[in-house]
Amino acid sequence: MQFASRLDNVETSAIRELFKLLGKPGIISFAGGFPDSAMFDVEGLREASRRALDEEPGGALQYGATEGYEPLRAQLSSFMKNKGVDVAPDGLIVTTGSQQALDLLGKTLISPGDKVIVEGPTFLATIQCFRLYGAQLISAPVDANGVDADKLEALIAEHKPKFVYLIPTFGNPSGGTLSLERRKKVLQAAVKHGTVIVEDDPYGDLYFGEAPPPSLMALTAQVPGSRELLVHCGSLSKVLSPGLRIGWMIAPAELLAKATMCKQFSDAHTSTFAQATAAQYLKSGRMPATLAHVREVYGQRAAAMGAALKREMGDAVSFTQPGGGLFFWARLTGAGGKLADANQLAKRAIEKGVAFVPGAPFFAQDPDVATFRLSFATANAEKIEEGIGRLGQALKG
Amino acid sequence: MQFASRLDNVETSAIRELFKLLGKPGIISFAGGFPDSAMFDVEGLREASRRALDEEPGGALQYGATEGYEPLRAQLSSFMKNKGVDVAPDGLIVTTGSQQALDLLGKTLISPGDKVIVEGPTFLATIQCFRLYGAQLISAPVDANGVDADKLEALIAEHKPKFVYLIPTFGNPSGGTLSLERRKKVLQAAVKHGTVIVEDDPYGDLYFGEAPPPSLMALTAQVPGSRELLVHCGSLSKVLSPGLRIGWMIAPAELLAKATMCKQFSDAHTSTFAQATAAQYLKSGRMPATLAHVREVYGQRAAAMGAALKREMGDAVSFTQPGGGLFFWARLTGAGGKLADANQLAKRAIEKGVAFVPGAPFFAQDPDVATFRLSFATANAEKIEEGIGRLGQALKG
Repeated sequence: MQFASRLDNVETSAIRELFKLLGKPGIISFAGGFPDSAMFDVEGLREASRRALDEEPGGALQYGATEGYEPLRAQLSSFMKNKGVDVAPDGLIVTTGSQQALDLLGKTLISPGDKVIVEGPTFLATIQCFRLYGAQLISAPVDANGVDADKLEALIAEHKPKFVYLIPTFGNPSGGTLSLERRKKVLQAAVKHGTVIVEDDPYGDLYFGEAPPPSLMALTAQVPGSRELLVHCGSLSKVLSPGLRIGWMIAPAELLAKATMCKQFSDAHTSTFAQATAAQYLKSGRMPATLAHVREVYGQRAAAMGAALKREMGDAVSFTQPGGGLFFWARLTGAGGKLADANQLAKRAIEKGVAFVPGAPFFAQDPDVATFRLSFATANAEKIEEGIGRLGQALKG
Repeated sequence: MQFASRLDNVETSAIRELFKLLGKPGIISFAGGFPDSAMFDVEGLREASRRALDEEPGGALQYGATEGYEPLRAQLSSFMKNKGVDVAPDGLIVTTGSQQALDLLGKTLISPGDKVIVEGPTFLATIQCFRLYGAQLISAPVDANGVDADKLEALIAEHKPKFVYLIPTFGNPSGGTLSLERRKKVLQAAVKHGTVIVEDDPYGDLYFGEAPPPSLMALTAQVPGSRELLVHCGSLSKVLSPGLRIGWMIAPAELLAKATMCKQFSDAHTSTFAQATAAQYLKSGRMPATLAHVREVYGQRAAAMGAALKREMGDAVSFTQPGGGLFFWARLTGAGGKLADANQLAKRAIEKGVAFVPGAPFFAQDPDVATFRLSFATANAEKIEEGIGRLGQALKG
């Protein structure tokens, strides 16, 4: 069987191979990218789905508009308004998870050979998704304060990309958060060069102490001309439930219309059953308590992991304590002649009974093999202590 | 903003413009392609979703495997077994409606410029979906017995298409059903020329009297070598609920693996909440009664529409009474000097208070402007009488 040429641009990821080893009994896994199932508000979602079927069964079970179920678009408009973004219900479309927003952006914007700038490192499924549409990815460097805005602008000027894709808040995998100053610079650079910026924001609500700076979308109000160039992707997956597959995309009207047309031929619309349930949940007023709960629990786990890493790994790893999200992004320093290759460490770690993801595959260009990602979301503090202890043993060899 | 070149291959359909007129008060619409909301087993689905959340909330609300939720794959395997198809749970993947199966086939198989053979007429969203991936569509003629198998083989030999896409049973829009003899010929032609055949089968369970011939997938058992060339797309949308967005695809292992990779970057997975609900519903044993109910009600409506068409339109239209599905496919004969252009009739009909879809857009090549599609799914017998009466008035001018 002969497959489409676009498949030549992607390969089965090394991470998938690693994930096959996770079934080993007794493994403590920091490898996943998912929230803790124990955090789901099952009672609230049960009630929401009951109401969805009681109040408007025809809406919840019938075909729906490709743009999304109206009551959910209205709820998401309010949800965004609370986060400083002024968007009308028809200024956003509902997507089947924010992964679909990425797919629709690829389908709508990327012609084979087009350049797209991403962070180095960035979300693995973004790299593969855009490459399937033939994108040539350019990597912009990041640090704990997010993407280097000056270097990003230089890359924009040099490559004239179709768009720039960023996860500015508690990035996956970097854990980094773009500073307020850099956010404004990014928006100014977008206006100066007429470049579309895609802000992927699945983690922005998951902060542990102080709230992060306003989203790029919220800040467009302060940078004239930037709103017409900004796309914002949101998701309920990390804070409420990934199983609903509810994401959304805010974009300039013309782009939103084209993306809607592409969505029509991708899956017609997102499950109205899931959309009606999400709408009822947001309407129920339980979201603030749910957010407070996940922030508290993940915050404790992040603190436990940071302390354990310092204690067990010392100067053999460098990292910045994340202020939110689900991930630590760490780097093997090689201090004291210790291991500096995270792929090797991952193999040794599996033998010691702990798993994590090496960082190299997250780079679209110039992989840094010393980096790795640890999720603190699904293990409690005790397991985190034990797992990082095993990691320390693995480092010793 | 500059969009991807693939968007040049599609245009906003004339049908969408027509649909905007459907909001007019008092319109009786035969234009839709959806089932009747009143037919949904709301009680059964409420119970199924309650069970899904009670029994395995972690599974129903968490990220899931891209291939699908295991209990649903097992239920779908049994469902297909009852229809004469022997497929293991891992021989199918769950898709976000069968629309996504079409999208994944396009993504996985179509390189720009590749030829694909479809029926003339065929499902409109298929035409657009495949064109977005750059397909050049070739149209094979159909009659009440489905695609002309001899002409199809000649077109395969001439064009060497990437694959052939058929809706063999109660086709949309043709209403036609491929005869048993032609089914075998199609499979033999596939083997002879090494051509992949895609069988889209959302309507096969919706028969009114006698069951239709076995699906192409079921018949592969009788034609050596054909199973390795056959893709089968199924859906719960027409018989249970479109809002769940549950479809599935059975395909040769290598193709299924590539489609799964593409799905990973399209929407990660289909809503596990919807999948777990569908799995519980199928497990509950209510499906046979639901099928019996929809068959009875739609069968009555089809009979009412056929009788009304004969009475009101006489020899001005020709059509074959459908044995299942949701649609009449009719053709203006021009007899007695009456209108022979369905676009003109559609405009007049809207003025008289009845809507339907002209047939021309359903043709990928050589549109027949005399054809049109009427859905009998959503209006009761009384409304059908009244609506077809108005259509008769519109024809008189």
